[in-house]
Amino acid sequence: MNLLEATIARIPEPDLTAARETQAHLDRKTKPPGSLGRLEGLACTLAAIRGTADLDLPPKAIVVMAGDHGVAEEEVSAFPQAVTAQMVQNFARGGAAINVLARQAGARVVVVDMGVKSPLPPHPEVRSVRIGPGTRNLARGPAMSRDETVRALEAGIAVAEELAASGVELVGIGEMGIANTTSASALAAAFTGASPEEVTGRGTGIDGAGHRRKVEVVRQALAVNEHDPADALDTLARLGGFEIAGLAGVVLGCAARRVPVLVDGFIATAAALAAARIAPRAAYALIASHQSVEIGHRHLLAALGKRPLLDLDLRLGEGTGAAIAMHLVDAAVHVLREMATFASAGVSGAER
Amino acid sequence: MNLLEATIARIPEPDLTAARETQAHLDRKTKPPGSLGRLEGLACTLAAIRGTADLDLPPKAIVVMAGDHGVAEEEVSAFPQAVTAQMVQNFARGGAAINVLARQAGARVVVVDMGVKSPLPPHPEVRSVRIGPGTRNLARGPAMSRDETVRALEAGIAVAEELAASGVELVGIGEMGIANTTSASALAAAFTGASPEEVTGRGTGIDGAGHRRKVEVVRQALAVNEHDPADALDTLARLGGFEIAGLAGVVLGCAARRVPVLVDGFIATAAALAAARIAPRAAYALIASHQSVEIGHRHLLAALGKRPLLDLDLRLGEGTGAAIAMHLVDAAVHVLREMATFASAGVSGAER
Repeated sequence: MNLLEATIARIPEPDLTAARETQAHLDRKTKPPGSLGRLEGLACTLAAIRGTADLDLPPKAIVVMAGDHGVAEEEVSAFPQAVTAQMVQNFARGGAAINVLARQAGARVVVVDMGVKSPLPPHPEVRSVRIGPGTRNLARGPAMSRDETVRALEAGIAVAEELAASGVELVGIGEMGIANTTSASALAAAFTGASPEEVTGRGTGIDGAGHRRKVEVVRQALAVNEHDPADALDTLARLGGFEIAGLAGVVLGCAARRVPVLVDGFIATAAALAAARIAPRAAYALIASHQSVEIGHRHLLAALGKRPLLDLDLRLGEGTGAAIAMHLVDAAVHVLREMATFASAGVSGAER
Repeated sequence: MNLLEATIARIPEPDLTAARETQAHLDRKTKPPGSLGRLEGLACTLAAIRGTADLDLPPKAIVVMAGDHGVAEEEVSAFPQAVTAQMVQNFARGGAAINVLARQAGARVVVVDMGVKSPLPPHPEVRSVRIGPGTRNLARGPAMSRDETVRALEAGIAVAEELAASGVELVGIGEMGIANTTSASALAAAFTGASPEEVTGRGTGIDGAGHRRKVEVVRQALAVNEHDPADALDTLARLGGFEIAGLAGVVLGCAARRVPVLVDGFIATAAALAAARIAPRAAYALIASHQSVEIGHRHLLAALGKRPLLDLDLRLGEGTGAAIAMHLVDAAVHVLREMATFASAGVSGAER
């Protein structure tokens, strides 16, 4: 059994007893029952994933995986392909949005080069995994081989294992990769059955003609890559990317270690859905952080059965929505740990 | 000219130049233009209110005003009236949800007894304003006199002035008062023209029979208190409450001092709308923090033309939604101050 199979086999069921204990604890707090809404649901979800009602503020990390995409040659992005590598260097220096928002949330940023086109100079803040120098063009054939996909998944599992071993108890997943909304749109269509038009958006801000071209590229990718819906790993290989497969691996590794995963936007959710199709129990570890502007995102969230916590018109990726949602996770834990109960505060309960 | 009139006269127009400068600054950051969505809009709004594009993390306070309501005798709440005073003591001891969430957000909590039924023992953490021992029953006649209402408004203005003078640059407003959703529903109907059914919800969680009674109480309050829609102060007096008028005063005082106000849920938004009807320019200083479960809230937000930042199914009040939204305000400022620009990071811009 390889690392991937062993990890999938280890993913536990959610602990519903811990969730019920958490709700009972919340119901003793000085507030009308249920009045903290989704913060209460979030506390229960955390308890179910962690396997305990004794929650504490989680040490946090954001895993940002980067990779290049052969499909960029179809001119589906508003930005040149060199931006992937430039942004990895920006992450390494701490100047990107995810650095700023992770710092505010008290989260480490773990940057992984899963395969940008040209090798980057070594940097202590960038892990180099590099499955290859970018994927192949998914509009012409499979983006990745099955072997590359397993290696990317296992690299993600290894990152998750290492973070869990170092005490991290909440992981956000984000990405960078010019043209990767095209890959995510193709995965969304393949996994949900939605049409290319329904799942293909404007990415970083392509114009109308570019958008029409992008829809056709997604349609062509689906036609060229005959996929068996029952073989999620094959679908991920044909239509995904190194960073997408890597993040799917992070999800599997976190799920196996009972570490909740805050999923960012469209591309990260495509990775999360791939993980859930490969190992359905992994879906329990996922928390949707926000609703992206990308039109395909709602199809992915519906397929996962997740309601996002935030709706802030974000469309940046990098894990930015996940970082913002970390404040809500902390809020849920603070409420659970610090609020007085009706009994301790001498407050009367409901009478009618 | 009294303090109220002088304050209203001092409320400035928003600084649209500062807002435009802020957007231009954001457009130089390493991200697709507009891709941080509502965080970008929030930064521009803050600049317009503060009157500068040179934003910094704001020192914060949550003002929680409490008052009792004569209409509680109509059995419109699930909780006994004594809970208002008990919760004020819970706020003073730091055990309520707002204490926990304000602490997380780095905000001071300023608790004001605007008139709970029975005087509370003095406590260093509770300001005693006490316009009266609770309002009169608005289902039988005016809840407050015009003089009481002006005193409550001016007490709120004084709190805002003091906070601004002490360096506070962001104020959240919240409330506590058994039966005050009934008052807010009556104000919502009077200010927006919606029917009692459209604006009357379940408050702290009253049952079906209680809800039907509450709708009738709101209908009766509107019938008994003939109000002139052009005289917002009269409407506020007849249908409002001490804490609601006090918070309307906080809004006016903050607007006059260019301090942004994060409005909490249904009752706080009723106070904010009252302030905006008394002084329309005050609306520019308001930021809607969240969409409450209370059905009347959307009518109030629509009347103010505000889209809430969060939608977390909250229905607690106290300023809890405002405290949570403070993380988003900080995020907007962090992005503006800390992100690298395309030029500084050597990242290529869009090409198509």
